[in-house]
Amino acid sequence: MPRNRRISESTVRRLSIYYRLLSGLEKEGAPTVSSRELAEKEKLTPAQVRKDLSFFGSFGTRGLGYPVRELREKIARILGLNRTWNVAVVGAGNIGSALVSYKEFQKQGFLIKLIFDNDQRKIGSSHKGIPVSDVSHLADELKAHHIDIVVIAVPGPAAQGVAEEAVSAGVRAILNFAPVSLKIPASVSLRNENMSMELEQLSYFLVGGNG
Amino acid sequence: MPRNRRISESTVRRLSIYYRLLSGLEKEGAPTVSSRELAEKEKLTPAQVRKDLSFFGSFGTRGLGYPVRELREKIARILGLNRTWNVAVVGAGNIGSALVSYKEFQKQGFLIKLIFDNDQRKIGSSHKGIPVSDVSHLADELKAHHIDIVVIAVPGPAAQGVAEEAVSAGVRAILNFAPVSLKIPASVSLRNENMSMELEQLSYFLVGGNG
Repeated sequence: MPRNRRISESTVRRLSIYYRLLSGLEKEGAPTVSSRELAEKEKLTPAQVRKDLSFFGSFGTRGLGYPVRELREKIARILGLNRTWNVAVVGAGNIGSALVSYKEFQKQGFLIKLIFDNDQRKIGSSHKGIPVSDVSHLADELKAHHIDIVVIAVPGPAAQGVAEEAVSAGVRAILNFAPVSLKIPASVSLRNENMSMELEQLSYFLVGGNG
Repeated sequence: MPRNRRISESTVRRLSIYYRLLSGLEKEGAPTVSSRELAEKEKLTPAQVRKDLSFFGSFGTRGLGYPVRELREKIARILGLNRTWNVAVVGAGNIGSALVSYKEFQKQGFLIKLIFDNDQRKIGSSHKGIPVSDVSHLADELKAHHIDIVVIAVPGPAAQGVAEEAVSAGVRAILNFAPVSLKIPASVSLRNENMSMELEQLSYFLVGGNG
């Protein structure tokens, strides 16, 4: 069983957050950061931060804190951000277009290599500099371009078929934007991006959490 | 201090997930669901599910589980989903357009009432049926339309100014898509939608969590 199965999603999520904070601190030239500082920025407790980081073998020095660059690099390695990943986006609609123009992906090493669509007017053209391929050749193209991660941004009814093609092409990681629950083998990692979830956290705040 | 401050973000996130699962089960006509079933679908433990739900005063019946409709309605009340919220999107670019055409928001009660932009060619037109307003009248328009939640989908350098305008107009909840860290008063709830984070969870899986 891969080691990641033992670490909860929320821990990985916090690592992403620490990574982002540390990248900012590194740009500002900060040599060290305390668990208190890391905690304050994200409304966590310093104990939680120390626990998370000690789990990955990082220990701050009393009075000095953690070395920023070293800790950022360590988390980058853990999260697989010290290399690049080949990404394909399936669906050249609004969400697909937004993803392709989202420059942060590139900066993090997620390189969008291909976009797929079923619209003959889009196929063969280039979208923000990235070629649009025919989705009917999905599996072959995914293999040919060594795609690591497939992002599904097609309408709900088409999503399961796309996921199955991707799995058949050997893809092991899928990010799904379609508002449907996909059935895929347990050996493939699936993340569902649900944009309503963040809004629900806000509405929870607005009602004051009173049922 | 509002009650929600004592409940962790990850608990609220799980409530959103339960809500989604229960909505699906209700559509399928399932009268009850066990903590085991809820847990399996999201790779949680049944104990975690029971703990979350008991915290909100919901207890399953041994051998029967939880009543689906009742539990869904209860979580809807807790999350503030038993009513509608007026939402404004600032920025009519790719992300703004994707949000406006994302039909799930409407279904959940998040009604996008206005889009703002600074592009004179867009202002005054209608985008997916929603009027595009001049961002230079942001605060006044937010007040006039009783906007509850502002979604920031502008380029990074413009985001802080938009957030400040929204706060000055009395908005208490902000969802930020810009890749910057916003400074806002503690009385306003801020969520940052970082689309890289889900990809990072996938790359973590792909490297097997080995630093």
